[in-house]
Amino acid sequence: MPYVATNPSSPGIRALMELRPETGRPLSALAEALLRGPSPLSPGDRELIAAFVSSKNECRFCTRSHAAFAAAQLEPGMSLVESVLADHTQADVTPKMHALLAIAEAVQLGGLHVTEDLIAKAREAGAVDLEIHDAVLIAAAFCMFNRYVDGLRASTPDDPGAYTQMAGLIVERGYVR
Amino acid sequence: MPYVATNPSSPGIRALMELRPETGRPLSALAEALLRGPSPLSPGDRELIAAFVSSKNECRFCTRSHAAFAAAQLEPGMSLVESVLADHTQADVTPKMHALLAIAEAVQLGGLHVTEDLIAKAREAGAVDLEIHDAVLIAAAFCMFNRYVDGLRASTPDDPGAYTQMAGLIVERGYVR
Repeated sequence: MPYVATNPSSPGIRALMELRPETGRPLSALAEALLRGPSPLSPGDRELIAAFVSSKNECRFCTRSHAAFAAAQLEPGMSLVESVLADHTQADVTPKMHALLAIAEAVQLGGLHVTEDLIAKAREAGAVDLEIHDAVLIAAAFCMFNRYVDGLRASTPDDPGAYTQMAGLIVERGYVR
Repeated sequence: MPYVATNPSSPGIRALMELRPETGRPLSALAEALLRGPSPLSPGDRELIAAFVSSKNECRFCTRSHAAFAAAQLEPGMSLVESVLADHTQADVTPKMHALLAIAEAVQLGGLHVTEDLIAKAREAGAVDLEIHDAVLIAAAFCMFNRYVDGLRASTPDDPGAYTQMAGLIVERGYVR
């Protein structure tokens, strides 16, 4: 049961955004710009960073949602996403994505954990300013979204089909309704 | 030195928002709605929660900024803000604010740290759903803003006058320029 009264038919963060549309609108706009707007990182790679950070924060709703959104936009799908969540250092991603996931892992612990060495490694792997910026802001934003969802105990569907269905909607229509 | 190339004359998060206006716009809109828009909590009390969480996250730029913004909108000003940052349980705030600061403190650790007991105590002190919602989202949002600023090592002015000047602008014109 959520800690505040919300529409029981809206899953997860959707119910919180409906409760408070004044903050729901900029939150949706942020997710759209950050995960689907123009960026040198593909939407699939950005959703992978979102799922990875949500998993570190143990937010079940966001992990399952963004894992499904990443799987729908990356080859070979969920097996890749699951390998990143299990141990990103062993996953079959590019050296650049390894370096950006290491930065995201540091951001999850706290901004001051992002060292010059982590940034240098990302640059050596070919990351440009905007990719480093987006990796940091995606990781930071999911430290917010995860805490918002779990801090108010938003509902978390158990049915895996719910997340696949949400993935279809997000890929087709995006975060802003 | 920031980790990515930014305008050196823009302090802190402002430089990051200028670097990436696509995400800067929803971030500014979120700060405006959350800290200054309609809410049963006063802007001063909301800025106090923002400064408190930024201090727990050891983000010097956000702590000094939002402490100045809170002090400009609360009586008796900075002495109250400093007492909350030092030990909120001993500070001269209302029982409701004590309970909301305790919720914010739990959110900073992680969403799952917000217990039913903390929510019950806030309700006993008179907090309504929207106040609990806003306290959780402000705390969550500053876990993002703090990581964004420090994860990219945004510049942090040393001159206390810089924060007083920013406070004047925020109180008068808000977060959206």
